[in-house]
Amino acid sequence: MSAEREPLFDVHQLAHMELLTPNPEGTLHFFRDLLGMEETTRQGQSVYLRAYEDWYHHTLKITEAPQPGLGHVAWRTSSRAALERRVKALEASGYGEGWHDGDVGHGPAYRFRTPDGHPMELLWEVDYAEIPEDKRSPLLNRPQKRPLRGVPVRRIDHVNLLCSDVTKNKDFMMEVLGFRLREHIVLNDGSEAGAWISVSPLVHEIAFMRDATGARGRLHHVCYWYGYPQNLCDIADIFREEGIVIEAGPGKHGISQAMFMYVYEPGGNRVELFGDPGYLIFDPDWKPIRWTEETLAAGIVWYGGSLPAEFFRYGTPVVEGAEAKAAE
Amino acid sequence: MSAEREPLFDVHQLAHMELLTPNPEGTLHFFRDLLGMEETTRQGQSVYLRAYEDWYHHTLKITEAPQPGLGHVAWRTSSRAALERRVKALEASGYGEGWHDGDVGHGPAYRFRTPDGHPMELLWEVDYAEIPEDKRSPLLNRPQKRPLRGVPVRRIDHVNLLCSDVTKNKDFMMEVLGFRLREHIVLNDGSEAGAWISVSPLVHEIAFMRDATGARGRLHHVCYWYGYPQNLCDIADIFREEGIVIEAGPGKHGISQAMFMYVYEPGGNRVELFGDPGYLIFDPDWKPIRWTEETLAAGIVWYGGSLPAEFFRYGTPVVEGAEAKAAE
Amino acid sequence: MSAEREPLFDVHQLAHMELLTPNPEGTLHFFRDLLGMEETTRQGQSVYLRAYEDWYHHTLKITEAPQPGLGHVAWRTSSRAALERRVKALEASGYGEGWHDGDVGHGPAYRFRTPDGHPMELLWEVDYAEIPEDKRSPLLNRPQKRPLRGVPVRRIDHVNLLCSDVTKNKDFMMEVLGFRLREHIVLNDGSEAGAWISVSPLVHEIAFMRDATGARGRLHHVCYWYGYPQNLCDIADIFREEGIVIEAGPGKHGISQAMFMYVYEPGGNRVELFGDPGYLIFDPDWKPIRWTEETLAAGIVWYGGSLPAEFFRYGTPVVEGAEAKAAE
Amino acid sequence: MSAEREPLFDVHQLAHMELLTPNPEGTLHFFRDLLGMEETTRQGQSVYLRAYEDWYHHTLKITEAPQPGLGHVAWRTSSRAALERRVKALEASGYGEGWHDGDVGHGPAYRFRTPDGHPMELLWEVDYAEIPEDKRSPLLNRPQKRPLRGVPVRRIDHVNLLCSDVTKNKDFMMEVLGFRLREHIVLNDGSEAGAWISVSPLVHEIAFMRDATGARGRLHHVCYWYGYPQNLCDIADIFREEGIVIEAGPGKHGISQAMFMYVYEPGGNRVELFGDPGYLIFDPDWKPIRWTEETLAAGIVWYGGSLPAEFFRYGTPVVEGAEAKAAE
Repeated sequence: MSAEREPLFDVHQLAHMELLTPNPEGTLHFFRDLLGMEETTRQGQSVYLRAYEDWYHHTLKITEAPQPGLGHVAWRTSSRAALERRVKALEASGYGEGWHDGDVGHGPAYRFRTPDGHPMELLWEVDYAEIPEDKRSPLLNRPQKRPLRGVPVRRIDHVNLLCSDVTKNKDFMMEVLGFRLREHIVLNDGSEAGAWISVSPLVHEIAFMRDATGARGRLHHVCYWYGYPQNLCDIADIFREEGIVIEAGPGKHGISQAMFMYVYEPGGNRVELFGDPGYLIFDPDWKPIRWTEETLAAGIVWYGGSLPAEFFRYGTPVVEGAEAKAAE
Repeated sequence: MSAEREPLFDVHQLAHMELLTPNPEGTLHFFRDLLGMEETTRQGQSVYLRAYEDWYHHTLKITEAPQPGLGHVAWRTSSRAALERRVKALEASGYGEGWHDGDVGHGPAYRFRTPDGHPMELLWEVDYAEIPEDKRSPLLNRPQKRPLRGVPVRRIDHVNLLCSDVTKNKDFMMEVLGFRLREHIVLNDGSEAGAWISVSPLVHEIAFMRDATGARGRLHHVCYWYGYPQNLCDIADIFREEGIVIEAGPGKHGISQAMFMYVYEPGGNRVELFGDPGYLIFDPDWKPIRWTEETLAAGIVWYGGSLPAEFFRYGTPVVEGAEAKAAE
Repeated sequence: MSAEREPLFDVHQLAHMELLTPNPEGTLHFFRDLLGMEETTRQGQSVYLRAYEDWYHHTLKITEAPQPGLGHVAWRTSSRAALERRVKALEASGYGEGWHDGDVGHGPAYRFRTPDGHPMELLWEVDYAEIPEDKRSPLLNRPQKRPLRGVPVRRIDHVNLLCSDVTKNKDFMMEVLGFRLREHIVLNDGSEAGAWISVSPLVHEIAFMRDATGARGRLHHVCYWYGYPQNLCDIADIFREEGIVIEAGPGKHGISQAMFMYVYEPGGNRVELFGDPGYLIFDPDWKPIRWTEETLAAGIVWYGGSLPAEFFRYGTPVVEGAEAKAAE
Repeated sequence: MSAEREPLFDVHQLAHMELLTPNPEGTLHFFRDLLGMEETTRQGQSVYLRAYEDWYHHTLKITEAPQPGLGHVAWRTSSRAALERRVKALEASGYGEGWHDGDVGHGPAYRFRTPDGHPMELLWEVDYAEIPEDKRSPLLNRPQKRPLRGVPVRRIDHVNLLCSDVTKNKDFMMEVLGFRLREHIVLNDGSEAGAWISVSPLVHEIAFMRDATGARGRLHHVCYWYGYPQNLCDIADIFREEGIVIEAGPGKHGISQAMFMYVYEPGGNRVELFGDPGYLIFDPDWKPIRWTEETLAAGIVWYGGSLPAEFFRYGTPVVEGAEAKAAE
């Protein structure tokens, strides 16, 4: 009766990501003072941060580096046994790189790279944020009080990576790690220009988009979540007044149905902010949404403007000829 | 290394629920004209409906009956094999009742009852909604256009059942079906007054609350989802003008962090509407939130008024001495 | 002590406007079924409509005509005596055209034209909407229940007229009718490219913008008001699905701080919808906000995209070489 | 032709109000750190504050005093000549008290009291806020950048005063100062329990409500304005976490159609926050909305809970037997 392949539930969530920045003070100011994130600790050239509804020690590690870009992306499995299974699969895939001892905030992690070379890791043991008494909320399902700084984001949402070959990277994440394809853009020549994949009802914890510059392993953006459209407008006001370049939005994506805004943090990395819940996928047998060249306009931006040319070329590290949008 | 028990991912989502009503015309008017739901089909004494972002044939079946109350709750598994595994577990539990041939909109379903007697079923095969050409949306991840009637809800969210023994019913759902405990109320005598459990990042697809009247197997409410606080205000306006009794809200729950409103549909059943995304649980090793008598006030209503006495006693079918809140 | 000139309070509000349309069925569908407006009556080639929180017989008169465009704009004075005073001033100005007997919904009106030729009228006597019993709201400060159709607008807000000479038209409205200058765009050559003027705390009941085509007396848009940003998103969803062309937005203007969206109704006229309260001016000695070529970008769109080229050229009636934005 | 009395436009706006507090540090913390207001200056026992979209030197003066309560309410006229006219009328009314030299932030002011004894003043000359370069916004119609502290209110909205005789106080404001009656509550015995009056399209800049304790001259609340419902929820979150007592709301009033929340600032005064634009009155011949004992429930709270008993008795200074609502 059951010849169908069963879905894999071993990889469970986006645990954290590391952002490289040539301007650590500016980057920290952006995430801490404007997005209201909490600084957990500092070590070496890194600062560890979390949104006020993130439960773990950190979801963002900012590390000083000569160029902006992606440090790594970390995934938490659904159990210790699930981690062991996925490590075996990674080893078999040829993309595994081996265990390292962990970092501030989590236990041993298994390192690997996507076919395009984006550094990632898989882990099970995490430290939970230790919240001082005076920051604890009577709202027990909230790890700490809402900060009084800026317009505080609530939690990490997803990462979006540029790559030289969308299909290859997507297939790797699906086959080896169990991600499910939710939406993708298929051009008339049959190639995929973008793919949105997830291990949860979120439309994506990770997206791959084709790097128009031909570069490999770059970061398109990391996204934090508000869930309330008004908060996206509130922070847009602040960005305009503080000189943060808004690349696009607030607007509404067709793909993922998310209320979006893209900005450049002072270190040069693109950051997205989500202003609404979008839609969630509960169907265990989901048929991926296929956007074509004909239907794509509605998918990219459902309403609220359009995406500028930079959106399709700018990534970090920066490549010559694909610079950021200038401030107005 | 991995002695911990692994989580079970066999039950995947709330597929639909059946509502009994002594006033089918009134109930239909409520869901179709005010909440903007779509009528899929009628058969016998039943009308089948779905919200415009529900993908399946129906998420709500309204059946004429002498008393309001719960018809049944249906869950979809993550695969055909998962269904087989859960049926075996149900048979072993003593709560299984056997297969029936299915209904309009889905294939074979296995019937069972909670310890308190709430009828439920488990299924894998579902029919997807067939949307006529003129109702299809260019937004491909939306099964149909947003209706122009009322303030349309987007999807089914959860059910809340009253029961004589919260712990017993919760344990059954957790042990046999793999639900995970997200939040609960534990009284000073150690007993559970309410439990919110889920198989997805939603805080609950089902909640059990203690029936203060001592009755068994009753319905507290079914909930549909907007995701936008303003839409909750929009429909509140309409309810006030159309004579629909608002029992409580709009307000904000502490438990689940949901923007809520409770109303009575004309058949007498309580319906909840969710106005925001609340919070989602991605941690695979979630420590359940425990509300006590001391912390409960913040949990029940975080802000926006309080719950009236009826909230804790009224359910369907109605029991003597526990009537609905009167219209103002 | 008081040599300063006192402000004039004789003209009190935008009473209604008449829109010409070559597609009366389409235009009516747009305002009635999508924007949820109420049809009050029909007479000759005209249909009279009001938003559900408009108190008067109508705020919009739709009249069939070979070309889209402005029929007329009507202003109500603060008293009968104020009407008499303003009529004298209009007669003295040379722009008065004389009394006519009124129309369905109001009493005698005095006709005049702006220097650019836009037809206008001034009146005191108005008929209030007669609301049938079953449409009356228990909310006594709301003339009728919120309609269940579309996403209903709440009230008329303002009109925006294209003209060959902004300063001349603005000065006429200020000097003869007592409008006050709230914001304007002054180019480097000293000429005004746009002026926003009002007789109330609204930033404008009327704006004049320079017609880049050099034409005279055209309509840029009429605006209806929601006051809630989410409703602007709700109707944007519907516009996308119903094939209504969104020219720009939702976004946020700097000028007036309004959350805006511009669409073309099926008759070809541009319609704006306001999604938030913007800001209000209570200072009786307001210093007009002066936008220059240097600061203008922030004024036109504060966040949420940009205005397309058509915005600055398209008006009704349409002039050759300045057509509407095409549907995507 | 024009026997009707013409409306008076001499009093133009609520300019500022003074709040007495026995806990100046707590009161300042509330307005500056939670509501994001700006401190302009300090002098003697007073601190002067403004919301970030208030244009004048201050709209709130906080003065240390043994008891909480109202210092005074100040109104700005529409011109210098209008001030002279109103002073004459006040002198003739017997409620005038004479000129004083002004205060930090404004010029000479004429002092008077309502029949109930609430101190008020009328003025024309005001100082505008001097905004340092680094706080100026590129949004030229906003006097300064949106602060990064708390959830910043945008502007002062209205004051609500308790009094022993609503009709007498209301009539005084209408006859001597030109306020217009917008809504009122008329009990079955013909007496007025509350009256909302204004000189602008706002439903009220001032309300009078009957003091159930029989006391005279007390303050019910002062209200600041957001205009965005979500911001009301944002600050409600913070109030709950910071231990500020929410007396009622967020909810929606029928009277004024305002999204409201009432809290006690640490000095003991009730403060209201407005979360939406409510409705505006542009009709120059407005028929006051009359709420009766039969229709009142809908007027007091349209949706979102109910008002607690304290709402109708608590005011400042506090009278014995009419204490504030306790924290949960």
